[in-house]
Amino acid sequence: MNIAILGAGNVAWHLSKAFIMAGHPVRQIWNRTVEKAADLSFEIGGNSISDLSQIKEEIDLIVITVSDEAIEQVASSLKPRDHQIVVHTSGSTSINVLKPYAKQVGVIYPLQTFSKDVAINFSEIPFFLEACRPDVLTDLKRVVGQITKKVEEADSAQRMNLHISAVFACNFTNHLYSIASDILEKYNLSFDYIKPLILETANKVLQATPKDVQTGPARRHDKNTMQKHLDMLSSDLDKQELYRLISQRIVKMYDENRA
Amino acid sequence: MNIAILGAGNVAWHLSKAFIMAGHPVRQIWNRTVEKAADLSFEIGGNSISDLSQIKEEIDLIVITVSDEAIEQVASSLKPRDHQIVVHTSGSTSINVLKPYAKQVGVIYPLQTFSKDVAINFSEIPFFLEACRPDVLTDLKRVVGQITKKVEEADSAQRMNLHISAVFACNFTNHLYSIASDILEKYNLSFDYIKPLILETANKVLQATPKDVQTGPARRHDKNTMQKHLDMLSSDLDKQELYRLISQRIVKMYDENRA
Repeated sequence: MNIAILGAGNVAWHLSKAFIMAGHPVRQIWNRTVEKAADLSFEIGGNSISDLSQIKEEIDLIVITVSDEAIEQVASSLKPRDHQIVVHTSGSTSINVLKPYAKQVGVIYPLQTFSKDVAINFSEIPFFLEACRPDVLTDLKRVVGQITKKVEEADSAQRMNLHISAVFACNFTNHLYSIASDILEKYNLSFDYIKPLILETANKVLQATPKDVQTGPARRHDKNTMQKHLDMLSSDLDKQELYRLISQRIVKMYDENRA
Repeated sequence: MNIAILGAGNVAWHLSKAFIMAGHPVRQIWNRTVEKAADLSFEIGGNSISDLSQIKEEIDLIVITVSDEAIEQVASSLKPRDHQIVVHTSGSTSINVLKPYAKQVGVIYPLQTFSKDVAINFSEIPFFLEACRPDVLTDLKRVVGQITKKVEEADSAQRMNLHISAVFACNFTNHLYSIASDILEKYNLSFDYIKPLILETANKVLQATPKDVQTGPARRHDKNTMQKHLDMLSSDLDKQELYRLISQRIVKMYDENRA
């Protein structure tokens, strides 16, 4: 397939490369800020375009990777030909926002976190697909199946819940790493010290259920230690509040099991 | 060194094995519930004892791994000989609780999470040591240096902050994994789907600062998506509150950087 990528953020960078490696050339790249489209086209080849009307006849798949709130506006500016499939890559946006603007629409949602400078192995990333018609789904499965082994289907409600899960397990988790980093820095301790623990915590749940491997003062309902920690955090009420809230949740979860 | 382990929980199981593999036999195991001491001695050898007065002359190092609130009580029941070093393994307990009860005291705090059934490679785990005297510290460094490459020193305040960091980066992170698991289960989605994301999130911060790789709706200040997620979580006010609190923290952190 010949592909046009709309947007030039983290998802666009990684997904473009994955398409190209799978033999699907990215011919055109559009971005609201044309310089960013040019940066990406410099990196991967293809042509940057400044106007959505420049999308060519030869394009088979138009992939919208812009931010969620801009998806519908970008879609509404397209004049796709009948043979062109228009997809977005958003977890929390319904397929329906595309339907008024194209005959063939779908969603390809990669459940992964992308940072521009961190290389990604796509073959293990689950992609969740949705399409307006079975034949469009088949087309999408074929192309996506060449960049990952894990092609799944999900409707818009499931996809949003995948996204919410990802926010907790990835975005919020990374924020907890930031908090740990802050605390360590404050006491002249290297963030390196905690890296084996971070990795082990993630590795554990690859083989076990998170509930079964929960550890820590809240898990043991160790009030003494929790109180010491809350006292130590008294100079940072934001962190203290978060400590209290999550600890309460854990205590409650395991008290119910103990009862 | 000949070692006695007091306590038979997760730390005791893993640490005993590490000592033995490093050539330091665990001769005696005590636990408040003697059956648990017997289980551990069945696993690793050595003798389970039911009374702390049974600790023998031949023991060089007494390692207290009981829960934090029980450490002082256990220490107060010991009658250590002058040559015996008494240590605890707690992040949030001062070395001072041991001082009234033994001439040679210290702390060996492994910064790691231990679940009984998950094997651990000790050689990369940082251990934070503290001792009542330089010569005791030297002894502890020698023995601990045989189970890990990463022997560090930390005073009681630093150690508590290491522990608080670990609570955020490990215990609370695992709780976020639990929440993700709940949400997925509710929508008939496999927890397996999110495992590559969990692993990538951890792997990313091995090479980058958490603040630099933060992603997600809150990072982009994408109010629309956050509102959709909050709406979707309205049937579970606990999760909704946590979503709101952490998102607000992230928004604030990056708004300050944008400003």
